[in-house]
Amino acid sequence: MKNKRVRTLPALAAAGACLVSLLAASDHPLRPPYREVFDRLREAGLAGERAYGLLERIVSVGPRLTGSPQAAAAVRESLELMGELGLQNVHSEPVEVGRWVRGSVAEASVAASGTRAAIPLAICALGGSVGTPEKGLTAPVIEVLSLAELDKRGGSLKGKIVFYNRPMDRRLSDPFAAYGGAADQRVDGASAAARYGAVAVLVRSLTFREDRYPHTGLMRYRPDTPRVPAAAISTADAAVLSALLEKEPAAPVFLRMDCRNEGRVVSANVIGEITGSERPDEIVLLGGHLDSWDLGVGAHDDAAGCAAALEAVRLLKDLGLRPRRTVRAVFFMDEEFGGTGGRAYVAAAERRGERHLVAAESDRGGFVPVGLAVGGRILPKVRAFADLFVPLGVPAIVSGGGGVDVGPLIERGAAPASVMINAAAYFDVHHSALDTLSSVQPRELELQAVILAGLAYILAEEPE
Amino acid sequence: MKNKRVRTLPALAAAGACLVSLLAASDHPLRPPYREVFDRLREAGLAGERAYGLLERIVSVGPRLTGSPQAAAAVRESLELMGELGLQNVHSEPVEVGRWVRGSVAEASVAASGTRAAIPLAICALGGSVGTPEKGLTAPVIEVLSLAELDKRGGSLKGKIVFYNRPMDRRLSDPFAAYGGAADQRVDGASAAARYGAVAVLVRSLTFREDRYPHTGLMRYRPDTPRVPAAAISTADAAVLSALLEKEPAAPVFLRMDCRNEGRVVSANVIGEITGSERPDEIVLLGGHLDSWDLGVGAHDDAAGCAAALEAVRLLKDLGLRPRRTVRAVFFMDEEFGGTGGRAYVAAAERRGERHLVAAESDRGGFVPVGLAVGGRILPKVRAFADLFVPLGVPAIVSGGGGVDVGPLIERGAAPASVMINAAAYFDVHHSALDTLSSVQPRELELQAVILAGLAYILAEEPE
Repeated sequence: MKNKRVRTLPALAAAGACLVSLLAASDHPLRPPYREVFDRLREAGLAGERAYGLLERIVSVGPRLTGSPQAAAAVRESLELMGELGLQNVHSEPVEVGRWVRGSVAEASVAASGTRAAIPLAICALGGSVGTPEKGLTAPVIEVLSLAELDKRGGSLKGKIVFYNRPMDRRLSDPFAAYGGAADQRVDGASAAARYGAVAVLVRSLTFREDRYPHTGLMRYRPDTPRVPAAAISTADAAVLSALLEKEPAAPVFLRMDCRNEGRVVSANVIGEITGSERPDEIVLLGGHLDSWDLGVGAHDDAAGCAAALEAVRLLKDLGLRPRRTVRAVFFMDEEFGGTGGRAYVAAAERRGERHLVAAESDRGGFVPVGLAVGGRILPKVRAFADLFVPLGVPAIVSGGGGVDVGPLIERGAAPASVMINAAAYFDVHHSALDTLSSVQPRELELQAVILAGLAYILAEEPE
Repeated sequence: MKNKRVRTLPALAAAGACLVSLLAASDHPLRPPYREVFDRLREAGLAGERAYGLLERIVSVGPRLTGSPQAAAAVRESLELMGELGLQNVHSEPVEVGRWVRGSVAEASVAASGTRAAIPLAICALGGSVGTPEKGLTAPVIEVLSLAELDKRGGSLKGKIVFYNRPMDRRLSDPFAAYGGAADQRVDGASAAARYGAVAVLVRSLTFREDRYPHTGLMRYRPDTPRVPAAAISTADAAVLSALLEKEPAAPVFLRMDCRNEGRVVSANVIGEITGSERPDEIVLLGGHLDSWDLGVGAHDDAAGCAAALEAVRLLKDLGLRPRRTVRAVFFMDEEFGGTGGRAYVAAAERRGERHLVAAESDRGGFVPVGLAVGGRILPKVRAFADLFVPLGVPAIVSGGGGVDVGPLIERGAAPASVMINAAAYFDVHHSALDTLSSVQPRELELQAVILAGLAYILAEEPE
């Protein structure tokens, strides 16, 4: 370990390793005190759009839809990037994923008797949806506000397009709670409607804003119902359609999409690390997901998480900080289509006999950090260092953390950890064409990386 | 006071006012408990871009440079707006302000011997600067990194243009500290250079980003030195100029600006309130400043502060919450040119015999709130209600607060209070053409308004 402090404390250093191992790391004569480490991480991390440079590299391949050629390019680019940065143990691990193709057609319009021309509706296919017949389909639309409402409507839905229009509840403090409270329409809406004979579904985009950007996202078919096409409709067009339906119930909507599922392909997770100096098989994992949706470039979701994790590891490396345990960056594949990357990673880690102490996932965008959520087991440990995080804008450390990709690790005993991000604007861009590089503010992303680096250093360095 | 709870608690209500006055407000049978108030404020405040609507109204008049016709229009628009919202005691109070006019010309270029054409430099006049001679001026440029460096250069500066190029220190946690650490170049640089015979100054724009937007801001002349023109240069052009000076020291720069000072005019502060039910002369003030710089529309700086303060008062009013003390929104004039509005306000308040208990100024943009800073005297009181602020994303309540406009009130005993705002991106837009309506995210502004409303309600309602 490169450490100038060693030279300034020769007497203590000479006292030898057996004494050293008895001391808490912060009093450790061979290791810089944490306050100094945090100052150095902050100064290096904020010095000049470093994390943003990594973000640019990751999104340079374009949108990274699971199973797509761009996702494969992202794997290659990430391996190259980790190699350039001098990480250790850089490699990819295979992940079998589904390949869904958006196609080139996604159009819809509503024909109202009082209008001369049909009104175009801004839509996009939901991820996993089947297409329509080649010439499209036309059917009367029925607006509902919940899946439960379908049971009341019953047989009247046969041959109809169901239009789910329940908004995210803006009044909730937590935008993720608002998202969770409306996402059933997108995920389960198609099969729920198909059970009653509906021929397609339109789902209000999951965003607080009223605009003309449709927001895609995963939908799932039940095995026991017909597979009907499912599209997201922009919130502005949802308002237009809803207003029109008030005047003219069951107005006919035309829908045409050529999206399709194309079987399974082999993709990969990408891994790089600073191998621990004393306990290399004990791992503090910092992860994000490399795949993205394809309407934007997935800069916030989740190239930002990958860039923050990678920059955190790079900061430790550049400052010559090699903690006792391994600090590993993992770019998971296939979070958006079900998390096969996270499961494949756990299986490989178990084969190698690795022990994951902490699994930190960054998957809430590159917005400014506002807190830290860690598993109950490590909460007292992290809280003991709370004052180090305050200058980074993170005064609150609470119990929580986790994510789709690290879920399997946490089930097997790893403690979760997450930097809590300001989510006020997250769903404005989430899964839409607005999720672009320019929507990420460099300094906000840097702060996330510095916090991750500090957290990882403490957890990888503390004696227990 | 409109309050449904009264009707549900007839027995307690009948116990009479003398008992009531002995009870803490949160146990007060005639007043809704604070938790319920906060829930209602949050639900109403986040329901649908309300604060953003007010912001749109304020910026609809355009940039509001102190003393300009647009600033006068903003006073009229604000009076109308407060009237429409049903505030009490809506009025304006005169403020005498300077009138500086940017003019229509601000151009600069550097001629290097190796280049065929002069390289244009993106500049703008600093607020308060005199113009150049009509045909401009040309002089060799000397780059310096501090005012102190001028003393070493001494007589060599005679006839030169001084180019201040010390960047904001990105490594500091607090962007305002980084701003404060570089702002002396802008504020005092012209007179400091003129002392040594310099003929003009170019000042590196105060932003972390490298881009081609110059950032304006106030500069001040000392009475004892010649008044020389002062311009901000964009950070990207500062880099171009600096690189060129490395190769070719004292390369000549051409500068032409027709900005000018045009004496003094009468403008106004704008005031509206909910008059206190028991102690109308005790005031909890929520303020922002109505004037702005003129390159953008001053949406963050500081229409956002005005909109947040006004929305906070509107929320209390709409929910039928009339606390014991007066809650007053004040839109101050002339913050950017020296704070005459704040001083005029205090003089008027003293004439009326009003007592300002708390003066909360919002002047750090419409970005997401991350904390609350209040004066030491009210800190224990506000901290006692800390759990109410946590769901609004404000876990930390620290000692601090204040601002240019409320400074004179605080000197006279009012406790300061400020919602601390995420400032990572503030200086990206600050005083530049990027400070536009679309740079404000509606939900982030709403959160500030809800927090202000809750804070004001507690402080205006608590018995002591």
